Amino acid sequence: MERVYIGDLKNHVGKEVTIAGWVDIRRDHGKLIFIDLRDKSGKVQMVALPNHKEAHELANTVRPEWVIQVRGMVNKRPERMVNKDEANGDIEIEMLEAKVLSKAQELPFEKGTEVNLDTHLDNLPYTLRTPRSQAIFKVQATIMKAYRDFLIQEGFIEFNAPKLIGEDAEGGANSFDVEYFGHTAHLAQSPQLYKQIMVGVFERVFAVGNVYRAEKHSTSRHINEYTSLDIEMGFIKDHTDVMDMENKLLAYIMKELKEKHAAEFKLLGAEIPEVPEKIPTLKLREAQEIIKKEFGEDPKNAPDLEPQHERWLCEYSKKTWNSDFIFVSHFPITKRPFYTYEDENDQGYAKGFDLLFRGVEITTGAQRIHDYDMLIASMQKKKLNPEKFSFYLQAFKYGMPPHGGFGMGLERLTAKLLSLENVKEATLFPRDLNRIDNLLSK
Amino acid sequence: MERVYIGDLKNHVGKEVTIAGWVDIRRDHGKLIFIDLRDKSGKVQMVALPNHKEAHELANTVRPEWVIQVRGMVNKRPERMVNKDEANGDIEIEMLEAKVLSKAQELPFEKGTEVNLDTHLDNLPYTLRTPRSQAIFKVQATIMKAYRDFLIQEGFIEFNAPKLIGEDAEGGANSFDVEYFGHTAHLAQSPQLYKQIMVGVFERVFAVGNVYRAEKHSTSRHINEYTSLDIEMGFIKDHTDVMDMENKLLAYIMKELKEKHAAEFKLLGAEIPEVPEKIPTLKLREAQEIIKKEFGEDPKNAPDLEPQHERWLCEYSKKTWNSDFIFVSHFPITKRPFYTYEDENDQGYAKGFDLLFRGVEITTGAQRIHDYDMLIASMQKKKLNPEKFSFYLQAFKYGMPPHGGFGMGLERLTAKLLSLENVKEATLFPRDLNRIDNLLSK
Repeated sequence: MERVYIGDLKNHVGKEVTIAGWVDIRRDHGKLIFIDLRDKSGKVQMVALPNHKEAHELANTVRPEWVIQVRGMVNKRPERMVNKDEANGDIEIEMLEAKVLSKAQELPFEKGTEVNLDTHLDNLPYTLRTPRSQAIFKVQATIMKAYRDFLIQEGFIEFNAPKLIGEDAEGGANSFDVEYFGHTAHLAQSPQLYKQIMVGVFERVFAVGNVYRAEKHSTSRHINEYTSLDIEMGFIKDHTDVMDMENKLLAYIMKELKEKHAAEFKLLGAEIPEVPEKIPTLKLREAQEIIKKEFGEDPKNAPDLEPQHERWLCEYSKKTWNSDFIFVSHFPITKRPFYTYEDENDQGYAKGFDLLFRGVEITTGAQRIHDYDMLIASMQKKKLNPEKFSFYLQAFKYGMPPHGGFGMGLERLTAKLLSLENVKEATLFPRDLNRIDNLLSK
Repeated sequence: MERVYIGDLKNHVGKEVTIAGWVDIRRDHGKLIFIDLRDKSGKVQMVALPNHKEAHELANTVRPEWVIQVRGMVNKRPERMVNKDEANGDIEIEMLEAKVLSKAQELPFEKGTEVNLDTHLDNLPYTLRTPRSQAIFKVQATIMKAYRDFLIQEGFIEFNAPKLIGEDAEGGANSFDVEYFGHTAHLAQSPQLYKQIMVGVFERVFAVGNVYRAEKHSTSRHINEYTSLDIEMGFIKDHTDVMDMENKLLAYIMKELKEKHAAEFKLLGAEIPEVPEKIPTLKLREAQEIIKKEFGEDPKNAPDLEPQHERWLCEYSKKTWNSDFIFVSHFPITKRPFYTYEDENDQGYAKGFDLLFRGVEITTGAQRIHDYDMLIASMQKKKLNPEKFSFYLQAFKYGMPPHGGFGMGLERLTAKLLSLENVKEATLFPRDLNRIDNLLSK
């Protein structure tokens, strides 16, 4: 008999079905044994009665996380047993026949036990099976899908950027070294140079892929391998075209999440933010004035925002404009990468922006330099050797339109959306200073 | 004035528009200067007349690959000038005003010049702009999209597998070493272990991501960093469920390519294959019998197929069943990875398969072992230390359904579909023994 998903059982009331999944909970009431069975689509309560002897015996032996297949009758529950708050709360499966597909050993702890982050990570193949983790990564998959769908609608083409990069280009202190046939290669910190090259080919491109930061800090918002959602678009008037595109993209993602994941957000006690028609924007200097005036700390023209400043600005944005999002633009050009475009009307400052969301930066973007000579001059100012960028520079030798883009960390966005305390909870298999799956030996 | 895409000009005949793009060709007829302008959506012929003095002067100075913006009138061409074989062959833009967005230096060679592969790769930021390369990577983007759309419809959830893996697990001779905070990590050769873990979480999962092989061979079908399209599905009856899913997936991809990329296939002189309702399948031993009988070479029970054998089998499949695809199943279990399921009805042979397409293997798949004790025994048989797999093994300790999956190289599939001679032509920025963007210094 064809397997029926548990989520579809309501269409089979009064009929015999075959279902399969994991034993979620087993409650032994002597003659009656209740088992909650779980598959990818949901959960259902089953009951084993003594008159179906073999099924009853099997129900007696199974334990949580055993995988079983069951032939059973889909019965309506008696009125007083109906649980209206549960998906299959009005039905019950009477077990007729059952077989074990796979046993499970004793569990390290009961599922759903609150454990500390290290214990969670030590046991991921088990802890990812909790409703909480499943919800997080379902939401994350939908963010990726919505991101792609929106950009494809807008005429962007997806490409795969290489992660293995040469000795030239953006290497440096924060990159991991790879032993490459007698050479030292690096793991990419971003697809930046490649997405700019691709603007010369397709004008509008995006990429989704892992990037690497060999940073030794251990905070709740950093990981050493993460997924970067990147876009780059040509023929822009300036960086505000990129900000507008991101604004629309975020609105689309939130709309999709609302349609598909109300239940997951409820489970996690998180709220899907409203995206304003136009996300408010402050220049860094304006933002610093506000911090001074409203929060009593003078950032004194610091070239960047401290984490506390980001939190304050988000608080201010929420209060003033009812927006969970706020753009901060015009950081000093000296503190931005060599390819960043300086604002000709506000010299010394970049046509670039960060996007802050619920207290943290989730995006960095900018208009880029498209003129070859300007780019060479900018490299020289930053003491970079243009020779090392010869491959990339070809794009600019052979005609590049004004362009810009941004990068967004998928895990950090997921964590902030779902109000998770640590980005590692939104990273399937997080790598950090001390851990690749297991803790690294000292 | 809002920019109009060149591909949409036919809707603006008799009107003034602003367009922007790259100078593709410039033909100087003295008073009349013709420029073909190219953007992401197509090409159009423009004409500069002496009566629009400034535009004419600018047209006189521009060279191929300069990026310009043009205000112009969309005119119907006189009947005798119409070129019916070109997209905008019946219109022409009269240049009224123009400005240069970006100049280009002298080109290394004229666009479209046939160059050898090394020259092509040396100049990728320029050579990717040819219609040929654009066609290849548009098709590749659609393959990725179709792959995802189909699997999401079938209830699969996408996840991002880590590429940075620990000292344990599948390391070994063919993996690249990464210096990781005083430890040696490796670049993943596949997401295999993670996608199996994820079957325990979501039953059906897929991943798209770079994988790495530190193999020193230099052939037309190998690269050291490629994109792997992976799936893994739970609650299967055996490996044939996985083959059926791949069969349907391929049919969906080809349908999408037919709808969207007839022009690209035509340009490349390639044909979109028909996918049979049921792709023919041979056991390895049957395939070897056929090779012996039909092609006169005895593979003598070799545990794998030689490249020439793969070509012959595809030839045979085409001739016999009119299929560009053929599955070969039941390779000796001793030659397959430790997680491969042995066929209980054909002992010594794997419930696994390769898919051959146009003379080359594009997929390897199998049912996997889901029983913890069987898995440990299989590791021990292969002289692997189960301790090193302790993280992965948790999935099996805590109940795993029968499952299987496959991996498919995106670039190799693209190359074969488009009849490209070398997989590097279907790889945006190929890394090999001698090259990461530029040739590596000796």
